[in-house]
Amino acid sequence: MSVTAPRGFEAAGVAAGLKSTGAKDVAVVVNRGPLKVGAAVFTSNRAKANPILWSQQAIADGVVEAVVLNSGGANCFTGSFGFQTTHQTAEKAAELLGVGAGDVQVCSTGLIGTGDEVFRAKVLAGTEAAIDGLDRDGGIAASEAIMTTDSRAKRAVHEGAGWTIGGMAKGAGMLAPGLATMLVVLTTDAVLDSAQADAALRAATRRSFDRLDSDGCMSTNDQVTLLVSGASGVTPSPDEFTAALASVCLDLAEQLQGDAEGAAHDITIEVRHAASEDDAVEVGRSVARNNLFKAAIFGNDPNWGRVLAAIGTTDATFDPYDVDVWMNGVRVCTAGGPDRPREDVDLTPRATDIVIDLKVGDETATILTNDLTHDYVHENSAYSS
Amino acid sequence: MSVTAPRGFEAAGVAAGLKSTGAKDVAVVVNRGPLKVGAAVFTSNRAKANPILWSQQAIADGVVEAVVLNSGGANCFTGSFGFQTTHQTAEKAAELLGVGAGDVQVCSTGLIGTGDEVFRAKVLAGTEAAIDGLDRDGGIAASEAIMTTDSRAKRAVHEGAGWTIGGMAKGAGMLAPGLATMLVVLTTDAVLDSAQADAALRAATRRSFDRLDSDGCMSTNDQVTLLVSGASGVTPSPDEFTAALASVCLDLAEQLQGDAEGAAHDITIEVRHAASEDDAVEVGRSVARNNLFKAAIFGNDPNWGRVLAAIGTTDATFDPYDVDVWMNGVRVCTAGGPDRPREDVDLTPRATDIVIDLKVGDETATILTNDLTHDYVHENSAYSS
Repeated sequence: MSVTAPRGFEAAGVAAGLKSTGAKDVAVVVNRGPLKVGAAVFTSNRAKANPILWSQQAIADGVVEAVVLNSGGANCFTGSFGFQTTHQTAEKAAELLGVGAGDVQVCSTGLIGTGDEVFRAKVLAGTEAAIDGLDRDGGIAASEAIMTTDSRAKRAVHEGAGWTIGGMAKGAGMLAPGLATMLVVLTTDAVLDSAQADAALRAATRRSFDRLDSDGCMSTNDQVTLLVSGASGVTPSPDEFTAALASVCLDLAEQLQGDAEGAAHDITIEVRHAASEDDAVEVGRSVARNNLFKAAIFGNDPNWGRVLAAIGTTDATFDPYDVDVWMNGVRVCTAGGPDRPREDVDLTPRATDIVIDLKVGDETATILTNDLTHDYVHENSAYSS
Repeated sequence: MSVTAPRGFEAAGVAAGLKSTGAKDVAVVVNRGPLKVGAAVFTSNRAKANPILWSQQAIADGVVEAVVLNSGGANCFTGSFGFQTTHQTAEKAAELLGVGAGDVQVCSTGLIGTGDEVFRAKVLAGTEAAIDGLDRDGGIAASEAIMTTDSRAKRAVHEGAGWTIGGMAKGAGMLAPGLATMLVVLTTDAVLDSAQADAALRAATRRSFDRLDSDGCMSTNDQVTLLVSGASGVTPSPDEFTAALASVCLDLAEQLQGDAEGAAHDITIEVRHAASEDDAVEVGRSVARNNLFKAAIFGNDPNWGRVLAAIGTTDATFDPYDVDVWMNGVRVCTAGGPDRPREDVDLTPRATDIVIDLKVGDETATILTNDLTHDYVHENSAYSS
């Protein structure tokens, strides 16, 4: 059911010709209220697509009536013409929905540099067709319309006590942290004000999407938007809602990890006993971004030296010669020296667990990543051609 | 001729059984003087191999009589036993050469975690055999003995006015900046004192090896050592010597780039009109480390959006919407929008030139890198097995 699982939402996904395959490529999600609360987080890349520049302004008042999303073109580095396209998209949706353009969020994904007259015409027509087709059961179609190289749509639902959270996500590459790392729409019929929605969204994404680092490449178009209808009439406690939202975000993040371009392993890197949570994240991310480590995992090679070589490049507090490393439950390195034989490690399962014990504090963090494979190289050397 | 091109040096390379192929794997370079000046730079990785820990101490007095180098094992994360192996190697060489152990530099390269009793015995025997075989023409053999996954030995010679610089290098992966990024020995018969040698070496490596970033992975074992015999009796000006040393370093760095594991393109990233040299380096390096960009180049795909997405993650001073990008001479992006058609760019040659004009200042820097290929993934998923 995706984003239409909670009460108060309608959605649609249509094919507007942006994708050469003829697949769905424009989605609209509308909040029918009674609340029209919205919150969003955006890529921290300074190179921001036109929809990001628009949506960042539009979210300032904490009111969102609708989100229009397209695949098949990023509308990034397309100049003032591209910004006008985004603006016209919001105005078109606003006019048809009878709301203000400033309350329409716009998201795009696809090839950077794509956003000409043909793109504009298709996006505007698709927006109109999607709004014509809005439906209480449109969440599935919407989740399909935002796919790019994704092999499957990503959806999640959490049922609270009388209230619900729904979500959809797209993303299979250029997945790296920076507030948000993909296109995600989250919806809820719980009752929250705009400050609560913003705080919950930031807390939830910080420990989910921000801890996913598939390929170290930060996108120009990433946005996570939360829409609050309040249609359940139920007001959960902030902690309860935030925990539920975080579980939905982590569910979607794991779906993104599991569908990352060309990946053969889903790698969970748990850093234990760090001096601070930031240290734990920095250490985990250094491993997640090390191509030699990632290629070794692809080859089912428990080359733990590459873990230590990676974390040695960080500024985190620890003694490089007193670190333990486990690979799939086997402690291969203790206190800076070999422990159990490499041959004891079985890296054939897709799920791969790396544990790094820094032995200096009480903080922990888990980073999700993927291996570096032939298929990753293939997909990313042929994407725009 | 490599390291034995200048007067005052002897070298040898022998097979000690560290490599399963039976190829040469232990090298010794000896400075016969009259000067015994030495300088060295080391990896800035906090995870340092035992030979690095030894050599950093031993270089403190600026005196180097000899360098012993082995391939076939990194002797990194091998605990106190591994450090003793390095110590015994220096003592063995010192005893046979009639010098102090503290004036012997030791370098190792190979798999991290390799350094057991068998390794020690072979290194010690190889050191003895190499010293037995020291020769005025031993530079070629020495350059071969330090190869790991290198497909060819790297050597360079510069002839000054009555003085000479020679050099050898090994390195084909784990190439990323951090003072030094590979094993390199440089020799000269010019007359320099230890402060001059150190200053010249730091200046030369900063703009050569430190600007090579093949795969973003910093090694635990990298060291560049300069030996000064003074045997020519000629004292070049510091500027003249530093420029010559830099040219030898850049020559070797380009040989390393050209032989990087699995690479199909040698990519030169020139950043122009930066506000500072540091900004230019940061911008260039962000592109060099972007896997999506590197995979696109492998696919001969002029996907300039990935250049802008990469540089947008930096803190350098520039306007992301006012940057020009050239690929092999074609300006594909102007002022944050498309310029010439992608189809005009021919990326089939191995040599690939990327120019990024930041339009804010007068500083420039050039980073050398490689593409991300199937062969890189293959070689690095199978290296230790």
